[in-house]
Amino acid sequence: MSGEVKMVDITGKNISIRIATAEGEIKLKRETIERIVKGEIEKGDVISTAKIAAIMAAKRTSEIIPLCHPIPLTNVNVEVKVLDNERIKVETTVKTEAKTGVEMEAITATAIALITIWDMVKKYEKDEQGGYPHTEINGIKVTLKSKKEISL
Amino acid sequence: MSGEVKMVDITGKNISIRIATAEGEIKLKRETIERIVKGEIEKGDVISTAKIAAIMAAKRTSEIIPLCHPIPLTNVNVEVKVLDNERIKVETTVKTEAKTGVEMEAITATAIALITIWDMVKKYEKDEQGGYPHTEINGIKVTLKSKKEISL
Amino acid sequence: MSGEVKMVDITGKNISIRIATAEGEIKLKRETIERIVKGEIEKGDVISTAKIAAIMAAKRTSEIIPLCHPIPLTNVNVEVKVLDNERIKVETTVKTEAKTGVEMEAITATAIALITIWDMVKKYEKDEQGGYPHTEINGIKVTLKSKKEISL
Amino acid sequence: MSGEVKMVDITGKNISIRIATAEGEIKLKRETIERIVKGEIEKGDVISTAKIAAIMAAKRTSEIIPLCHPIPLTNVNVEVKVLDNERIKVETTVKTEAKTGVEMEAITATAIALITIWDMVKKYEKDEQGGYPHTEINGIKVTLKSKKEISL
Amino acid sequence: MSGEVKMVDITGKNISIRIATAEGEIKLKRETIERIVKGEIEKGDVISTAKIAAIMAAKRTSEIIPLCHPIPLTNVNVEVKVLDNERIKVETTVKTEAKTGVEMEAITATAIALITIWDMVKKYEKDEQGGYPHTEINGIKVTLKSKKEISL
Amino acid sequence: MSGEVKMVDITGKNISIRIATAEGEIKLKRETIERIVKGEIEKGDVISTAKIAAIMAAKRTSEIIPLCHPIPLTNVNVEVKVLDNERIKVETTVKTEAKTGVEMEAITATAIALITIWDMVKKYEKDEQGGYPHTEINGIKVTLKSKKEISL
Repeated sequence: MSGEVKMVDITGKNISIRIATAEGEIKLKRETIERIVKGEIEKGDVISTAKIAAIMAAKRTSEIIPLCHPIPLTNVNVEVKVLDNERIKVETTVKTEAKTGVEMEAITATAIALITIWDMVKKYEKDEQGGYPHTEINGIKVTLKSKKEISL
Repeated sequence: MSGEVKMVDITGKNISIRIATAEGEIKLKRETIERIVKGEIEKGDVISTAKIAAIMAAKRTSEIIPLCHPIPLTNVNVEVKVLDNERIKVETTVKTEAKTGVEMEAITATAIALITIWDMVKKYEKDEQGGYPHTEINGIKVTLKSKKEISL
Repeated sequence: MSGEVKMVDITGKNISIRIATAEGEIKLKRETIERIVKGEIEKGDVISTAKIAAIMAAKRTSEIIPLCHPIPLTNVNVEVKVLDNERIKVETTVKTEAKTGVEMEAITATAIALITIWDMVKKYEKDEQGGYPHTEINGIKVTLKSKKEISL
Repeated sequence: MSGEVKMVDITGKNISIRIATAEGEIKLKRETIERIVKGEIEKGDVISTAKIAAIMAAKRTSEIIPLCHPIPLTNVNVEVKVLDNERIKVETTVKTEAKTGVEMEAITATAIALITIWDMVKKYEKDEQGGYPHTEINGIKVTLKSKKEISL
Repeated sequence: MSGEVKMVDITGKNISIRIATAEGEIKLKRETIERIVKGEIEKGDVISTAKIAAIMAAKRTSEIIPLCHPIPLTNVNVEVKVLDNERIKVETTVKTEAKTGVEMEAITATAIALITIWDMVKKYEKDEQGGYPHTEINGIKVTLKSKKEISL
Repeated sequence: MSGEVKMVDITGKNISIRIATAEGEIKLKRETIERIVKGEIEKGDVISTAKIAAIMAAKRTSEIIPLCHPIPLTNVNVEVKVLDNERIKVETTVKTEAKTGVEMEAITATAIALITIWDMVKKYEKDEQGGYPHTEINGIKVTLKSKKEISL
């Protein structure tokens, strides 16, 4: 009988200031990028919707990723920028004072921001069969992780 | 005063059988892939944890992606396979009978499965500073979308 | 590589009226039962709190039990009664018009009602070490399940 | 032993197109309103954040209001406008095809939009003790409710 | 490209004991108030249902209001009283030991209690078209906010 | 007018290391137990699915049990074992550093694991009418509770 699933026990660990940054990008049609920049997307403001989705997902990471610990986040900062005429980049930095790191929160928030951008521009990315031959999310990785002891 | 955000109104649309498949992959260390295949991951069963996370995320997509409609999913199927000695691929197919498509559910489930795999193997992917120089999620895209009218 | 997890595909199934009833009981100290009956519980109204917890849990069953389908419940009815001087019984009936049954919703709601009763009376059930030598939940089972075709 | 709590049984009801509109307003300082209009709020875009919060709350009403039925919303539309130099008005219209009305969804979404506006401008509304002597939410009411039978 | 949304960074702040009280009222028909007082509401116990809804909403404020930080609440106290023959008042006090205040939690809980009261008495407030010409929520404001340093 | 519901105020309490263990069992058909042991359940891996459901439910206990405080869990450990040819036992240990105990989290996790086992094997437990004459959850109780002061 298999079936091992084990949360890491962080009971004994110290509380430190933890910071993690993750990034990722979404490939879109040139025309879609232009629409986003000009604010001509029918569903509305792509960037603020993606940022809010990311912040809310970061806060709920322990509900979504099965073995993540609940962590009281102290900040979530999401940057969205157009890289070139076919890619948008999302970069999320998460902070906390906790017993474990927040990289899963940063990764989850980044992925959800990218998926939200996709959702906002579906109409312009679809082909005639309703497929998305061009749209793709890539390069989700952790670019920074740091930990600073708190002196009481 | 800007601030436009608009859900698509699907009130008038017909209920159809909707199917969507999305896929994506995660790049891991060769050693980590071997551990997964041999079942030697300390946190336990990577594949079943990733599948469950994906299924549960698919069901909650309308809570996570701001403008998605709530949809009564009738099936979520998640396949996980080792592509080669450094990549694992996730493929998720979502079905429903509803007024709108389920590609965002398939994409969200796929992304959450990939992030869960990462979370399960964090220990083996980390470098000495706690970073993940090697780990990366790529190629999240929609590979199938179909719609079939229901004859009453 | 193991890790099979599969939701049942209900796409092709007909929508029927579905009803399920589950029951269960909690063993409490005689003194606690008396307090409940007299309305002398410091945390307040045990019965209405248990019923509300059950109704809300029934509605969220597909978020809590991994492979349950999301189902639009049309009614949840919770009955709570004192069986004798040491047991309280909870009985929950759930209804829907859906492609699959609602017994997991009835079971989940019943269990959550019983746990909520426990939570409301913790103070009176605890021994000096904070343990609960007497308190126990038993007999959670399905007592009715029915299905009626809908004629269009 | 009191403790009655009863959901309305909607099992037998027909599915109709249901629409409900609710409105409400928040009183803010003249200076705060000016900042919102000029886009000078440090936390960012007040209007789009309020709209997204409202849409997401509408979708989760059955989780928040204990006896509400889960309803598959087909549209949520939120309008935010400056009434005069000290009040902002929110108006939310919710649509569905379901067995029961959506006024609680419209009310909940409106209230959450108004509270989100407050949260976005806390800094400008606070007095020296951190209180809010001026800020107030008023006039939350239902302004439209309609129901249209669906002919199969 | 607009789209600014920024959470306040509370990483550096001290943990203090934080208390906030918010209040608000709902206008109902005289007949409805009488029914509530006499316990003659078909859906059951209005007051305890409203209190539970408020407590549960306070705990989930950071999921509902986009830029609120997750805060480990240590108490939520809800008082409901009949003001006169047409108004019911709700007052909620929230406590925590945290890096930021809990007024948004108190406001959210109060609003949700008032909406829950409305939901419980819908039947008695509706006119013949299903509208609510009389029902209205007013006066949601913060009446107390305090902060006390913790000496270690 | 009744309707008392009161959360316990834990603001003044010290943060201690808290541990609680709860257990419970489910009665299944002999044939079902054999299938679980051999890994021949169509829905997949029963044990890992039950463990994940339990861990995720433990983390969300304060959302499910109305008066529970939100607690930052530091570990959830779930053990599942076949007791004899007709019973499976679940035992869950929950840890935290918090102002209040975690027995409700351990009980909730245990109950959800047992219900998830039921859900995974529904097909083999059902009789011809879709009922479950044999399946039953019993003996949910707290077997350990401890508290250790933290020396700063």
